[in-house]
Amino acid sequence: MKSSLSRLLPLASLVSALFVSGLPAAYADIVDDKLAGMEAQSPIDIRSDNTFFGNLSPLTFNLSSSTTLDVINNGSPGKEKTVRANVAAGAGSITVDGDTYNLAQFHFHTPSEHLENSHATPLELHLVFSDANSHLLVVGRWINYGDTNAALAPIFSNLPQTTADHLAVNSFNLNSLIPDNLESFRYTGSLTTPPFSEGVKWIDLAQPLDMSASQVQAFQKLFPDGDAREVQPLNGRIILTDVPNFVHVTPVPEPETYAMLLAGLGLIGFIARRRLATPGFMGSGA
Amino acid sequence: MKSSLSRLLPLASLVSALFVSGLPAAYADIVDDKLAGMEAQSPIDIRSDNTFFGNLSPLTFNLSSSTTLDVINNGSPGKEKTVRANVAAGAGSITVDGDTYNLAQFHFHTPSEHLENSHATPLELHLVFSDANSHLLVVGRWINYGDTNAALAPIFSNLPQTTADHLAVNSFNLNSLIPDNLESFRYTGSLTTPPFSEGVKWIDLAQPLDMSASQVQAFQKLFPDGDAREVQPLNGRIILTDVPNFVHVTPVPEPETYAMLLAGLGLIGFIARRRLATPGFMGSGA
Repeated sequence: MKSSLSRLLPLASLVSALFVSGLPAAYADIVDDKLAGMEAQSPIDIRSDNTFFGNLSPLTFNLSSSTTLDVINNGSPGKEKTVRANVAAGAGSITVDGDTYNLAQFHFHTPSEHLENSHATPLELHLVFSDANSHLLVVGRWINYGDTNAALAPIFSNLPQTTADHLAVNSFNLNSLIPDNLESFRYTGSLTTPPFSEGVKWIDLAQPLDMSASQVQAFQKLFPDGDAREVQPLNGRIILTDVPNFVHVTPVPEPETYAMLLAGLGLIGFIARRRLATPGFMGSGA
Repeated sequence: MKSSLSRLLPLASLVSALFVSGLPAAYADIVDDKLAGMEAQSPIDIRSDNTFFGNLSPLTFNLSSSTTLDVINNGSPGKEKTVRANVAAGAGSITVDGDTYNLAQFHFHTPSEHLENSHATPLELHLVFSDANSHLLVVGRWINYGDTNAALAPIFSNLPQTTADHLAVNSFNLNSLIPDNLESFRYTGSLTTPPFSEGVKWIDLAQPLDMSASQVQAFQKLFPDGDAREVQPLNGRIILTDVPNFVHVTPVPEPETYAMLLAGLGLIGFIARRRLATPGFMGSGA
């Protein structure tokens, strides 16, 4: 079991975060070296037994209901392998704890990178925000199979097939990506693609988004091996949630419980012996 | 409301902890200067709206049922003002997360230093443990008015009145200080007396201890102004608990809720106007 006291003393110093923009191939060794010292990576497995329930500060989204998107496929090896929708400056922001972060882009991973109780969904949406000092905040959202997502249809029916393709989408409603219920899971982690920079604030919204199987398949056709990073160890980090009934505490038996258990076993032994000695005891009485 | 995201990024670097042993008067300025930079101090107000519920690692106490105590009054100004029971080496330990801390002493504060939902109890017990590297762990326990505490009677019926007095107690059962139910509140804080060193692991047991009013009064007579430090700001620290039903989440109204509220107000206005126009509407009909 992961140390709960050590959770209070985060092991990893938080590295200032950088935007993902792809990485020269020669950079790979440097990244490998850096990763060796990293201990606060994303994604993670968000489980009922490693998450703490309480009040979280409110999230305020301010998103354009009609903006233009520049959708690209940056799926070459060693880069951030995904389909990414770059948004116009000023198209969206999130304010939390008095800090405002501006939306830069959103993109997708298959299967989902974050797990919920060790369970992946077919797809995961990441909305990447950045504040004035380039501190990153990523809003993640699980995507499940369901009805065709009409808002995302303009993207998923015309996914850019190669890194050379650009898809322009007009009048996109960014609010269609955000659920009514803003309950979430929050922790501090990293980019899930090179250079895996840490110090990224993660807000994983609990209410999933629906897409049709054919929409999901259109994305998966582009990345047949998937484009999800494996889950990373928590290393003493804390996951917080305001989702009711998600957290269940495993009761720790008290010494008294063991004593009663032993007493009970003793009683059963006593009864068993009495039954052998006097067959009528607790029997038919006949 | 305290930032929950900043809770994930502790502000204060954790200073290695030292044992309290009193402080030369000339030291006071240095302590004041140090305190100015301290942001993870104890005690704190443990409230339902600033605490997170989840699994905590098990606590294993290993305490002698018959040990000798050297009870002293170290209540001079500028020192740790309390009655303290020093225990023999090897008399007790606590193991948590694989680390073992040895019991050095226990002492009392009036009124309680830690608050529960802004409420103090008459007295608070602190059991001070230290590991091989002098890292401190303090187990705190609230004390309420109730029956006479027989186990503590040898101490509280003969409290040392001056700093010159020593009280020897034989055959003290340390297990009498620990409850059956080990549910707790945990956070990282400081000593509550000079030099207020930080990096102290706090485990506040939820189940209070009972003492009679006359036992509490015997202690309060020694410290008529009390010997409790005021609660300190959390500054982004996290309090964790495994106490069921202690944490309640304050729901954040969704935009839809506001919309329904406004719609409801509109409807009331409509009805009020109709009532003015047609007195029979929703009236007696007579």
